[in-house]
Amino acid sequence: VPELSWSDGLLEAGFGDPQTAQLVGWRSRIARMVEVEAALARALATTGLMPAGAAEAITRACDPARLDLDELAERASTAATPVIPLVHALTHDDELVASWLHHGATSQDIIDTATALQLRDALDRISSLLLALGDRCAEFAHQHRTTLMAGRTLGQQATPITFGLKAARWLAAIDRRLEQLRSTAPRILTVQLGGTAGTAAVYGSSVRAVTEALGAELGLAVPDLPWHAERDRIVELAGALAATVTTASSIAGDLVLLAQSEIAEVREGSGPGQTSSAMPHKRNPTHAVATRAASRLALGELGVLVDAASDHELERAAGAWQAEWVALPSALVRTAGTLVRLDAALGNLEVDAARARENLDRTLGLTGSEALVALLVPELGRAHAQRLVAQLAATTAATGRSLAEVAADHPEINGRVEATSLREALDPAAVLASADELIDRALAAHDRTRGEHPG
Amino acid sequence: VPELSWSDGLLEAGFGDPQTAQLVGWRSRIARMVEVEAALARALATTGLMPAGAAEAITRACDPARLDLDELAERASTAATPVIPLVHALTHDDELVASWLHHGATSQDIIDTATALQLRDALDRISSLLLALGDRCAEFAHQHRTTLMAGRTLGQQATPITFGLKAARWLAAIDRRLEQLRSTAPRILTVQLGGTAGTAAVYGSSVRAVTEALGAELGLAVPDLPWHAERDRIVELAGALAATVTTASSIAGDLVLLAQSEIAEVREGSGPGQTSSAMPHKRNPTHAVATRAASRLALGELGVLVDAASDHELERAAGAWQAEWVALPSALVRTAGTLVRLDAALGNLEVDAARARENLDRTLGLTGSEALVALLVPELGRAHAQRLVAQLAATTAATGRSLAEVAADHPEINGRVEATSLREALDPAAVLASADELIDRALAAHDRTRGEHPG
Amino acid sequence: VPELSWSDGLLEAGFGDPQTAQLVGWRSRIARMVEVEAALARALATTGLMPAGAAEAITRACDPARLDLDELAERASTAATPVIPLVHALTHDDELVASWLHHGATSQDIIDTATALQLRDALDRISSLLLALGDRCAEFAHQHRTTLMAGRTLGQQATPITFGLKAARWLAAIDRRLEQLRSTAPRILTVQLGGTAGTAAVYGSSVRAVTEALGAELGLAVPDLPWHAERDRIVELAGALAATVTTASSIAGDLVLLAQSEIAEVREGSGPGQTSSAMPHKRNPTHAVATRAASRLALGELGVLVDAASDHELERAAGAWQAEWVALPSALVRTAGTLVRLDAALGNLEVDAARARENLDRTLGLTGSEALVALLVPELGRAHAQRLVAQLAATTAATGRSLAEVAADHPEINGRVEATSLREALDPAAVLASADELIDRALAAHDRTRGEHPG
Amino acid sequence: VPELSWSDGLLEAGFGDPQTAQLVGWRSRIARMVEVEAALARALATTGLMPAGAAEAITRACDPARLDLDELAERASTAATPVIPLVHALTHDDELVASWLHHGATSQDIIDTATALQLRDALDRISSLLLALGDRCAEFAHQHRTTLMAGRTLGQQATPITFGLKAARWLAAIDRRLEQLRSTAPRILTVQLGGTAGTAAVYGSSVRAVTEALGAELGLAVPDLPWHAERDRIVELAGALAATVTTASSIAGDLVLLAQSEIAEVREGSGPGQTSSAMPHKRNPTHAVATRAASRLALGELGVLVDAASDHELERAAGAWQAEWVALPSALVRTAGTLVRLDAALGNLEVDAARARENLDRTLGLTGSEALVALLVPELGRAHAQRLVAQLAATTAATGRSLAEVAADHPEINGRVEATSLREALDPAAVLASADELIDRALAAHDRTRGEHPG
Repeated sequence: VPELSWSDGLLEAGFGDPQTAQLVGWRSRIARMVEVEAALARALATTGLMPAGAAEAITRACDPARLDLDELAERASTAATPVIPLVHALTHDDELVASWLHHGATSQDIIDTATALQLRDALDRISSLLLALGDRCAEFAHQHRTTLMAGRTLGQQATPITFGLKAARWLAAIDRRLEQLRSTAPRILTVQLGGTAGTAAVYGSSVRAVTEALGAELGLAVPDLPWHAERDRIVELAGALAATVTTASSIAGDLVLLAQSEIAEVREGSGPGQTSSAMPHKRNPTHAVATRAASRLALGELGVLVDAASDHELERAAGAWQAEWVALPSALVRTAGTLVRLDAALGNLEVDAARARENLDRTLGLTGSEALVALLVPELGRAHAQRLVAQLAATTAATGRSLAEVAADHPEINGRVEATSLREALDPAAVLASADELIDRALAAHDRTRGEHPG
Repeated sequence: VPELSWSDGLLEAGFGDPQTAQLVGWRSRIARMVEVEAALARALATTGLMPAGAAEAITRACDPARLDLDELAERASTAATPVIPLVHALTHDDELVASWLHHGATSQDIIDTATALQLRDALDRISSLLLALGDRCAEFAHQHRTTLMAGRTLGQQATPITFGLKAARWLAAIDRRLEQLRSTAPRILTVQLGGTAGTAAVYGSSVRAVTEALGAELGLAVPDLPWHAERDRIVELAGALAATVTTASSIAGDLVLLAQSEIAEVREGSGPGQTSSAMPHKRNPTHAVATRAASRLALGELGVLVDAASDHELERAAGAWQAEWVALPSALVRTAGTLVRLDAALGNLEVDAARARENLDRTLGLTGSEALVALLVPELGRAHAQRLVAQLAATTAATGRSLAEVAADHPEINGRVEATSLREALDPAAVLASADELIDRALAAHDRTRGEHPG
Repeated sequence: VPELSWSDGLLEAGFGDPQTAQLVGWRSRIARMVEVEAALARALATTGLMPAGAAEAITRACDPARLDLDELAERASTAATPVIPLVHALTHDDELVASWLHHGATSQDIIDTATALQLRDALDRISSLLLALGDRCAEFAHQHRTTLMAGRTLGQQATPITFGLKAARWLAAIDRRLEQLRSTAPRILTVQLGGTAGTAAVYGSSVRAVTEALGAELGLAVPDLPWHAERDRIVELAGALAATVTTASSIAGDLVLLAQSEIAEVREGSGPGQTSSAMPHKRNPTHAVATRAASRLALGELGVLVDAASDHELERAAGAWQAEWVALPSALVRTAGTLVRLDAALGNLEVDAARARENLDRTLGLTGSEALVALLVPELGRAHAQRLVAQLAATTAATGRSLAEVAADHPEINGRVEATSLREALDPAAVLASADELIDRALAAHDRTRGEHPG
Repeated sequence: VPELSWSDGLLEAGFGDPQTAQLVGWRSRIARMVEVEAALARALATTGLMPAGAAEAITRACDPARLDLDELAERASTAATPVIPLVHALTHDDELVASWLHHGATSQDIIDTATALQLRDALDRISSLLLALGDRCAEFAHQHRTTLMAGRTLGQQATPITFGLKAARWLAAIDRRLEQLRSTAPRILTVQLGGTAGTAAVYGSSVRAVTEALGAELGLAVPDLPWHAERDRIVELAGALAATVTTASSIAGDLVLLAQSEIAEVREGSGPGQTSSAMPHKRNPTHAVATRAASRLALGELGVLVDAASDHELERAAGAWQAEWVALPSALVRTAGTLVRLDAALGNLEVDAARARENLDRTLGLTGSEALVALLVPELGRAHAQRLVAQLAATTAATGRSLAEVAADHPEINGRVEATSLREALDPAAVLASADELIDRALAAHDRTRGEHPG
């Protein structure tokens, strides 16, 4: 299989993942179809529906090295399905092969089963990428346990959080996506074998036996029934991939926001593209930006898969299935590309804890106003406490003195509330107690997830 | 809770499900938010973070009967979130309640957890509808085991199938959707509790204990971490619902096609809307059409949920979360509406086995051409067999005699192939052997699925 | 027509526009359908296809005051289309009316033409909202011509701009959307009249005359042909609305970003929802957030319309058209709701010019680095100039002195470049020359746009 | 520019248009960017902002033949934008070029303006394809003016139409799309020139003059303002393309339905893919199916463009713009591919008028029931007429005699209605009067459209 270039459609503009493109591209699909034809022959021989000699001849014929893939691809483009020229090419004018190759199968059986094999590879790749992202987040959660920063809701500083907790939330989302992919895979990675219209009539009452033998040959699950026109599996897959790319995109969105000049709590380490020749002071969050772009592209193709699933007419779709041929591999490459770019962003990330603390302090401790209300409620009741804190906050904003100072000076507080209690309540570090517990939880869960994934 | 009218937004034009609309509408949401506030108070009391008396007072205050829901809804529309006027209304000027209600929580905690409760109800409803649809399909699979009809690929008669097998394929897809919903639910039906920015700092190191107590109060799963800004759960849900509606829509699409005047193998029993006063001969597949309409509407809202998930900025989204408030209940009502309409279509379905056989015979047995090729390959090799059958098919089409007759008369076949073998190969009933096995498989699987679902 | 409540589906959660909901809701649709039936009768009388007396009787019968809309809506929900019970109700047991009402028409004629009338109202409303938004932007462009602020690319301060120029860009986009709506309207606001299957056979060779008379009665354009199954008009409309809502959403997105605590160059004036009782210091950009939410919801319904357009089978769609019944009014209400919320955000906006300047200065003049390169290129060549400025920028960042100071001191600059030139090049106000010209252009164009819009 | 292969991303699986792929691919984009850099230099020279000698040197340097496109593409993939390595490569170590190339511009100026040039080519291609499709439909409308066939609503035979009228409806939709593209183009095909953050500050008060000179150099319209972060133009384009592909897809959908075995009123002429070796009797509507697949793929990319438009942050988007780099060319290639495949389907189409008439007659004249009601209303009143026709229709269906015969024999009709009137009313040819007029209208409009399009 030759190298892909960045301008190859599946990798357009560098937003795709070359490794996944190799796994799910058309050349790989043809190789996988050849593999399925051979496995089907052996499965038929095993179940007594094909002479052993024919299966052997077919297995020999199904050597990708004996095929001119470029010519095949070219011919496939003028055929209604790529299987027709493939079967022709594989016979190599051998009558035994010609008589038995593709016995009882239809084009869709070969294409869908080959796609399942490609999917298995692609999901392995995507899971590995997710796991690596999880590891990076775990590391951030661990390292930045006590890195205080402003929590921001609707873009406004609300109460303090830690960068470690933020990373732990990302980690938990990533681990949930791994769990979904794992629980989804058995429903998706299945053989398709139904013959022309789903009866697999040529196999008669051996249909289950053949399907099971084929599943065993290929290491794929055996579905209860052929699913040529029931594409719910594809929608389930699309849903899992959509959850994956939106998770990655949301993380990248946070990185872009945190890297803004005025916040600058994170930045991508300098590399090509991060700096501008015209504006050498800029440090663009290039990989996060690319993650956001790639995820949009992935969602486009995933939407095609979902919409198409409603329209698989009777025993074979007139358009909806054929759209899958393009949208599915493209969606996988763009999904993996999203993850690769996020990995580059996170792998390259510098966290500026000092700046984070400085930003927090710039709001004069107002992010502690909620904690202050909580502290005062037992003394003053909620309504009064809220009114008082609103007044203190106004004074803080007007005078530029910190909320802690303003509060300490106020007659209703001074004397009533212990200075120590006040200091503690208004100390951003007050969030560490709960944040720690939450981080521990996420790290422990990730350890379990790690254990469930080989490789 | 008052009755909804058909022109209510969630039920527009009769494409929604009234029962689900009751479960997920705004009135129900307010009731659920009230329930969450009360449960939180008890959870805090349990974990020692609130005086027992306060929790009791709050539980008493949280009686929906004491609230003016209309006024609340009105106020919520001018507030940034509905929680603010709700908390105000619930205090009933009781200082103890005011001091402790909503302690340590943020609006999103209440809304998201209330939504989880609504979701649980809605998913129960959707699962029940799916199960009932599965039962109908199982009945068709059973009853129409031997109802031969043309299998159609790209709209062309291909090889025979049975209506029973078609129904079994629908059944298998429905059962897969039930399985996905069941495996997805625990990841989705979870408490949300994070306080202002996800640290739940007010609870300190008791954060897990409170969350667990709240989960126990409400019967919801306890997530590892707050997930206010990680909406992957919502995308996973959207994916499961999309797989559900496209499955239903694809079945309805088949019904529309099979009901066409020129095919007429199924029809919806006569009811309002099925016949036209201007054209009394028409029998419109009204419920199938409504299923197709409802599913499109559901997919629109589900797409909103997926797209929004990328854009939950930092600790709270500025738009993406708020869009969920509308898109999520609407998606559920439209999804359930899709299923309700499909149920009406299938519950009302008349299958015309005689017409199905007649349609099959109109193509003069050409749907047996693949079987004939398979029969001849051992005698003639594939290439020759295909050429010969193509020739026989041309003669069949030209003369209007059946393929069986034409084949029997041909010198290369006559004598070489037993008349009995020929007849059997070309008999559409030849598909029954494999179809039976596949139907059995689907029915057995459905029995298992049934067993796993209570109610 | 009764009042709509905020919890009505079309207004869900306050993200819709009540005024548009009145115009496009189901009650209005029924009133419009009645109007179309009456107009058709008069058009038929005009063209000699109906006795004048019948047209008069029908016109009298078509008095909405004589109808029980609630009962009609209820009946419509169990009929396949709302027209059947409507026609029944309108006859009032008058045989003359019964004989001639709806003569030659099909349900879709009435529904689509009534929808065109609703669309005309909704597009008027949307255009008015856009025009008002344009006025607000024009005012900002005018008032903030010299309000310098950082231009930000990828979230990084790049070079200075003015808030006036930013508002002018918004204005230009809004004016383009008005222009598109105006150029699109004539292709969209058309009569539909085709009878059962588009031939309008009952009218024979008078078909054009009747259609033109109906257009004249209703003030709608007359299409070349019936378009019952060609929904490209709807897609064109959806495209125009999508361009409108994304324009509004993008502006709101900028407001959210500029309102962030660390930037704080704009804020929404205090009103309900903008402040938090727990965190009185926060000033949430509530209306901008609602704009972002509403636009997402609008895009969901618009996507339904686009996807449906591919699937209008033969002479009437089996699902795709029916989905329009819900998606189209909902899309309009959500689109108008997006604009209403943006209007609230802009009408309420405070621009903090001092803070904008402060933010610009915090980057020590580095936003002038591009201008400095441009100044030095004639002296040093581009490569050398870029290297030198990169070095100066590094010194600036390291020392905290401004780029202007650092540059003035550098031996390669000092002496070579006039101090005045240097000062001018690095003065953010250097952008005013071009910005002014661009703002003038946008304002002049808006004046023209204003002139083209009545009311 | 080298040949593209069918497995190239933009042409995946043969669903794209190779000619458009050449016009909008990355190699072409680089060539166009080079062209823009040269044109900008000349525009600056014209307006006195660059020495004439520099502009000449740059024009010489900007010779695509002097560039190694593969190397450039490779470098672009690791840069944040492709412009950076391009500018570097174009200098060819010439100091004069290096000093003035790209003067005052930013990457986005070059990319967006180059894209406008590509768009112009692509829209020309798409318009030509549409016009050719219109011609084909006009020919069908003309040739099949009197080809009677069943009009079908919800898949049910309703009343007769002609194939000519159906083709005229397609034609009218295609002509509307041409009209939209023509009216949209001037808003879309515009120069982008704003410098780093949209002020084009380097050009000072000459900004308009430079922009106009650049527009003149390139033959592009001059926008009022830079539009780097206002992507409403792209959404307007996406809307126009969506209307185009859904129009094409809807026509292809009709072809698939009319080609069904049981209807068989049209078929694609035999060619590769249309027949199946296993089932030689099948005639698959291969090109119509491919049209349906391609249109789905196009809609996916168009949706990406629309969704992205909301998210162009401040002066440059962090992801949304970059996604356009891939989605826009891909959308154009898939849109053109949709049209190319529909052209193949229509160019290859055989209409079976005899079969159409036979299908119509199979419903025993029941498609005339509406006409019969219309005939009887003046005699019997509508209610009675409808009841009577319903009764006649039931008899027709039960006896297998035609509606005409059954009606003629009925005592309430026999004697009351002239036999000739009855025969005429029930003759499907009664639709020809109105159909003719509508067809004439569409053909005349197409002649005008033709006149407005050169080439």
